[in-house]
Amino acid sequence: NSLSHLDADGQAQMVDVSAKAVTARQAIAIGKVRMSRETLNTIAAGNAPKGDVLGTARLAGIMAAKQTAHLIPLCHPLPLTKVKVVITLDEDLPGYQIRAEVKTTAETGVEMEALTAVSIAALTLYDMAKALEKSIQIEQIYLVSKTGGKSGDYQADTDAS
Amino acid sequence: NSLSHLDADGQAQMVDVSAKAVTARQAIAIGKVRMSRETLNTIAAGNAPKGDVLGTARLAGIMAAKQTAHLIPLCHPLPLTKVKVVITLDEDLPGYQIRAEVKTTAETGVEMEALTAVSIAALTLYDMAKALEKSIQIEQIYLVSKTGGKSGDYQADTDAS
Amino acid sequence: NSLSHLDADGQAQMVDVSAKAVTARQAIAIGKVRMSRETLNTIAAGNAPKGDVLGTARLAGIMAAKQTAHLIPLCHPLPLTKVKVVITLDEDLPGYQIRAEVKTTAETGVEMEALTAVSIAALTLYDMAKALEKSIQIEQIYLVSKTGGKSGDYQADTDAS
Amino acid sequence: NSLSHLDADGQAQMVDVSAKAVTARQAIAIGKVRMSRETLNTIAAGNAPKGDVLGTARLAGIMAAKQTAHLIPLCHPLPLTKVKVVITLDEDLPGYQIRAEVKTTAETGVEMEALTAVSIAALTLYDMAKALEKSIQIEQIYLVSKTGGKSGDYQADTDAS
Amino acid sequence: NSLSHLDADGQAQMVDVSAKAVTARQAIAIGKVRMSRETLNTIAAGNAPKGDVLGTARLAGIMAAKQTAHLIPLCHPLPLTKVKVVITLDEDLPGYQIRAEVKTTAETGVEMEALTAVSIAALTLYDMAKALEKSIQIEQIYLVSKTGGKSGDYQADTDAS
Amino acid sequence: NSLSHLDADGQAQMVDVSAKAVTARQAIAIGKVRMSRETLNTIAAGNAPKGDVLGTARLAGIMAAKQTAHLIPLCHPLPLTKVKVVITLDEDLPGYQIRAEVKTTAETGVEMEALTAVSIAALTLYDMAKALEKSIQIEQIYLVSKTGGKSGDYQADTDAS
Repeated sequence: NSLSHLDADGQAQMVDVSAKAVTARQAIAIGKVRMSRETLNTIAAGNAPKGDVLGTARLAGIMAAKQTAHLIPLCHPLPLTKVKVVITLDEDLPGYQIRAEVKTTAETGVEMEALTAVSIAALTLYDMAKALEKSIQIEQIYLVSKTGGKSGDYQADTDAS
Repeated sequence: NSLSHLDADGQAQMVDVSAKAVTARQAIAIGKVRMSRETLNTIAAGNAPKGDVLGTARLAGIMAAKQTAHLIPLCHPLPLTKVKVVITLDEDLPGYQIRAEVKTTAETGVEMEALTAVSIAALTLYDMAKALEKSIQIEQIYLVSKTGGKSGDYQADTDAS
Repeated sequence: NSLSHLDADGQAQMVDVSAKAVTARQAIAIGKVRMSRETLNTIAAGNAPKGDVLGTARLAGIMAAKQTAHLIPLCHPLPLTKVKVVITLDEDLPGYQIRAEVKTTAETGVEMEALTAVSIAALTLYDMAKALEKSIQIEQIYLVSKTGGKSGDYQADTDAS
Repeated sequence: NSLSHLDADGQAQMVDVSAKAVTARQAIAIGKVRMSRETLNTIAAGNAPKGDVLGTARLAGIMAAKQTAHLIPLCHPLPLTKVKVVITLDEDLPGYQIRAEVKTTAETGVEMEALTAVSIAALTLYDMAKALEKSIQIEQIYLVSKTGGKSGDYQADTDAS
Repeated sequence: NSLSHLDADGQAQMVDVSAKAVTARQAIAIGKVRMSRETLNTIAAGNAPKGDVLGTARLAGIMAAKQTAHLIPLCHPLPLTKVKVVITLDEDLPGYQIRAEVKTTAETGVEMEALTAVSIAALTLYDMAKALEKSIQIEQIYLVSKTGGKSGDYQADTDAS
Repeated sequence: NSLSHLDADGQAQMVDVSAKAVTARQAIAIGKVRMSRETLNTIAAGNAPKGDVLGTARLAGIMAAKQTAHLIPLCHPLPLTKVKVVITLDEDLPGYQIRAEVKTTAETGVEMEALTAVSIAALTLYDMAKALEKSIQIEQIYLVSKTGGKSGDYQADTDAS
């Protein structure tokens, strides 16, 4: 029930994981980007010929996953073995849903890498559409699941979204 | 009504801002991190002696603002003249609200820098509390206001949050 | 007739440009990626639905332009105002031609940014096709033109390619 | 005969290498920088007392190899165990030949790291000599050999250069 | 008795560690930041409510340890498993003493990571106090101990400080 | 008499410099690397043919100056117009003295850039010689002078070293 990143003196430190086993680990995160229906239609149309709007956001997410340890101060640098970002049009939102899956074989997990990929992909979508609509909102970024490691697997409740 | 980052062939490019005037610009963004009341209480207690939980998230947000052009593929590198990140406990959420303000004097604005600061600060809060609760959720990241530049000022509707 | 980056003692240094005028500058560079016709056909077909092969290389070039000062040791950090990368299929090569245009308003030029964008876009094309053919070759990267600055404009001879 | 970085939907992704064996891997790449004989003579003379022209290009190549996963969007971050860059004067070119050798022990190879080291070393040579001659050309960057990994060893045909 | 980073031709290279055993390694480094008693008192008072002065320097040190391979040209990129930075008020100096401990499981050691963490934490302290006193001095940064690896353990003489 | 990086709530923030005048600024810093006479002799001999020991440290310092805003959390990103690092053999130390000079035209100064260049150059010297002697010590890093900006010029007392 304590904050793992604080040492006995209450100071933030990178946790010692040197004694943990190197195991296969995976994490999946999702998030949403909500916009007006008009903006969504413009992106969907603009993306059509080359796929460059969603493709740019997807690549930004993949590259950001590799920068996680330089962005989140107490994250351990990890040798990622897979990063996959999928962006799906959601007519009901309206907007896009972003899903990132990350894998490693290491002493600690890749939850932050998956969440970072989703966040930066969402920000990139915002960037590409902000001339159309400044009120676009990034929503409900959370961890869907993680596997591997001593703390066991985790699966979000389906109603979390 | 078009996507400014796509050229005539539908290809994503960094927009040419060389002919735009260099003016003072400011952007403010906010976001929320929702968690269980128990997690919030633990963070609030753990943060008390040294302030290291919120202080770490705040610094991560400030440093991320400076990395924006390396994270968001089509953003222009800008000489930031101010970055301020404030994290406020929100008993009703329950959780924390994060607010970032960024300034520059340049040809284009700092909306993405403010949004990136909020996002990375939120992810850092998640990182520091994830051993307590994996269902923490990042919510409602959006632009509050921007000033400066030809496109004029922007102020979000208050009910957007 | 001397090497501008070496000081009087023959030591490499970042040149002092503080006394130079801040002016609008532009540079254009190109390069080629030569491959077998079979590889070219596979990329052209694979790229068709989403444009992700050329789109990925294009984005990598744009993002690399922004990293130039961190890659080329004696380059000055510059506020880029435009980066455009265009990749064109060249049936005769066979392969792709890459062209990058970069702009800034600064004390020194952006030749290295344009050349870096071309080089990293070329390497990314190699990366995406290397499972098909390892003998892909990057060829004839050079400066096409530069404008702005005291040293005057430059235009490559057309037979340089 | 397919593009390994595109998933079933034609979208670019970082390939999942988590099931591949961790083995010793090596890659060697070369490239050329062609310039006028006069420029070559000036560099050779300028480099003489301290070696700073070639030394700077060599270091830039070594450091760039370590940045490969941040430059090439779909490359995996790898723990490099050796990077060696050698730059040789080539009177016949005239110019310089650059050769990079990279090693790792990992799930995937270091071809891109070797090619990136060559490319950035070549660009750095260009940067240091561009005040003398803007028509310097980077030529024939290609993979010489790779060893290790399931796909087997590769050796370029000698006439590729 | 030779310089390990120079090859047979006297050229700086990243040493080949591919044949070395992967073992647990640790390094500890310290350094001092000397200032006037008045400055020390102001920092101690200013740091009191939130701990942000020392907390900022501590985080900067931790994050810098993760950047070591990008800062020190011939360092190998290593998967750090622990980084801890402790900053202690030293009334006698007067000033602060900074101590960093770094761990990895790798082919080579983390001395440079520990020394880099100390150095950047010290620079950050300087940055935060330089408006008060520009004559603050960073002193006596050295390696306290290292363990692991074929070359054996090392322990600094106590009078080195 | 207050800490400029702490806001009214005692929280560390990047200072707002948007209202400050853009002026020419320069900063000079120095530092020392003390080693045994035997180590010094080996470096001096090893450095002779190619200059790669001191050349590597010099370049590391120049490149680090450009990374200052990414290393020191509250530093503003600045467009550096000059970085010069000079390393001088000091028989009396024994060891090397490192001097860095940095210039910009901006709203704030480059003291941290000069100090960072010295620190990373010193660490690089340590890295290249640590196989010879682990007790090498980095000493007396301080600001020699700064010019430009509203706060006026600064010149260190000569006995500070």
